[in-house]
Amino acid sequence: MDALGGDAPATVLARSAVDFAAGRNIELTLVGRAATLRAVAGPHRVADAPLGISHGDSVRVALRAGVASSMHRALALLADAQVDAVVSAGNTGALLALCRKQLRMLPGIDRPAIVKALEGCDGERCWLLDAGANLACPPKRLHQFAVMGAALTQALNETPQPRIGLLNVGAEHSKGPLSVRRAAALIEADAGLRFVGFVEADELFEGKADVVVADGFAGNVALKAAEGAAAMARHLLRRELGGAAGWLFRSRLRRLTAAYNPQSYNGASFLGLRGVVVKSHGGADRDGFQRAVAQAALEVERGAVAKMSARFGAQGGLA
Amino acid sequence: MDALGGDAPATVLARSAVDFAAGRNIELTLVGRAATLRAVAGPHRVADAPLGISHGDSVRVALRAGVASSMHRALALLADAQVDAVVSAGNTGALLALCRKQLRMLPGIDRPAIVKALEGCDGERCWLLDAGANLACPPKRLHQFAVMGAALTQALNETPQPRIGLLNVGAEHSKGPLSVRRAAALIEADAGLRFVGFVEADELFEGKADVVVADGFAGNVALKAAEGAAAMARHLLRRELGGAAGWLFRSRLRRLTAAYNPQSYNGASFLGLRGVVVKSHGGADRDGFQRAVAQAALEVERGAVAKMSARFGAQGGLA
Repeated sequence: MDALGGDAPATVLARSAVDFAAGRNIELTLVGRAATLRAVAGPHRVADAPLGISHGDSVRVALRAGVASSMHRALALLADAQVDAVVSAGNTGALLALCRKQLRMLPGIDRPAIVKALEGCDGERCWLLDAGANLACPPKRLHQFAVMGAALTQALNETPQPRIGLLNVGAEHSKGPLSVRRAAALIEADAGLRFVGFVEADELFEGKADVVVADGFAGNVALKAAEGAAAMARHLLRRELGGAAGWLFRSRLRRLTAAYNPQSYNGASFLGLRGVVVKSHGGADRDGFQRAVAQAALEVERGAVAKMSARFGAQGGLA
Repeated sequence: MDALGGDAPATVLARSAVDFAAGRNIELTLVGRAATLRAVAGPHRVADAPLGISHGDSVRVALRAGVASSMHRALALLADAQVDAVVSAGNTGALLALCRKQLRMLPGIDRPAIVKALEGCDGERCWLLDAGANLACPPKRLHQFAVMGAALTQALNETPQPRIGLLNVGAEHSKGPLSVRRAAALIEADAGLRFVGFVEADELFEGKADVVVADGFAGNVALKAAEGAAAMARHLLRRELGGAAGWLFRSRLRRLTAAYNPQSYNGASFLGLRGVVVKSHGGADRDGFQRAVAQAALEVERGAVAKMSARFGAQGGLA
């Protein structure tokens, strides 16, 4: 784990990961200022790198920092197969750029995508990709995303035949930009995918599809708008039902505030790379960071990268 | 009002408008099947048109229907200055197409935009446009939207100097697609506008800007994702706090379910046309439809179209 770059102090994030690893079959390497991290590492390894790449830093800063940055150092360990996965709460753009530089892409995949799971009313998940790595996407890249999303959900045993949807502004065939309509044709023609058509953004929580594909701009907008609405719901709930009401219905309110809390779903996976990389939200707290570590551990355990690679290999590269 | 095309029966929508008009300085013309509407019209006029253009119909159907459609007939009354505004719960695409055909654009404006108000925790409003009329937008059109949004919020006395933001996936200057960055430069250079920079979708509810500009694809995705999250919040709230809890805190829960209900903010205005047109959500109920009628009445009362026209006239057309 890249211990630097998040809003929370390195020791808080490190301790959260160490606590999560306890009793699980997880060996950590905490990357950051070694002197600080050793105090919380317990049985785990520490790798020294003094520089964090945080939300406010530019990608250029990250590239220039080289091995001095904890992000670079952590990815180097992954490239060297000394670790199986990297979790970072640092700058997303920098993490993407370093991933592309230090790790290679899986064969048949042009660009990494960020995938994030949204949870519906009954815990059913919808995996949205791309959540912001690729602002504009030609149809064939959206098709690759569909295959990547399908491979991930299958590897994670979410469902054997994931239903694939495409984010659009209407359900009818004629709706939406040309690139989205062309992507629909490619996905529909792919016998390995179960295409369920266009999905509107309000349907992301309705269990209409297991995987929803979008370009990174629209995907990011959808995720953040939903987060903003959930944060407002949470704020209003606390305002109306704090105090006496909150005391009476504590456990129900706790379930609600958890459901309205984006941190409950923290952890966005980078797909398409030769290695598991999970981005934790910069503002993630202890619990949020543990979710990101759990996601990384699950992907390693289920062999998600190998399964994705096999999927693209089997197709002999996509059109 | 176009009484046909919504999910609710014409008489329900018509009665809701008639009730809203009672005691207000509003004269209605109910457009639809005259025989049915006369029973609920009271002192108001009725115009006969047998055909509704609903959500499921194509734009082609709407154009072919001609004067037989209530939508066409209502817009013809507006074009003829026999009414001051049209409210319709019919198909959005068809309404847009007919608006462009039957009404003219204001000088200096290329294309109509759909604007919708989002409400933050303390009732502060953020007007988002375009909400779906123009999927892709060159920078100059985004600039026009900024001027249109500013003119509308000024006309509605929301604020004398509206803060204009641009929807993007990051706050830094270097973030986002080229068209969005170019639009930022145009809006920033416009001395008549108060540009506050990029706004991320989770900030739409945080009172960071009074007007947020986006292309219709991203704007629609943002709105619908927020609606989806709010609908889920509402569903979970009812599940956890229905029954006994709901009974104890009835009024607080009612405030919350209203806040989580997209119908509370029903009514999307079409801007840039020579006339006030408000689109009510197809699924709007009685209360929702009244909100749309109220929005139309307010725009007429405040002379929103004349003020917008003056704004573009004063600028001698935008670059």
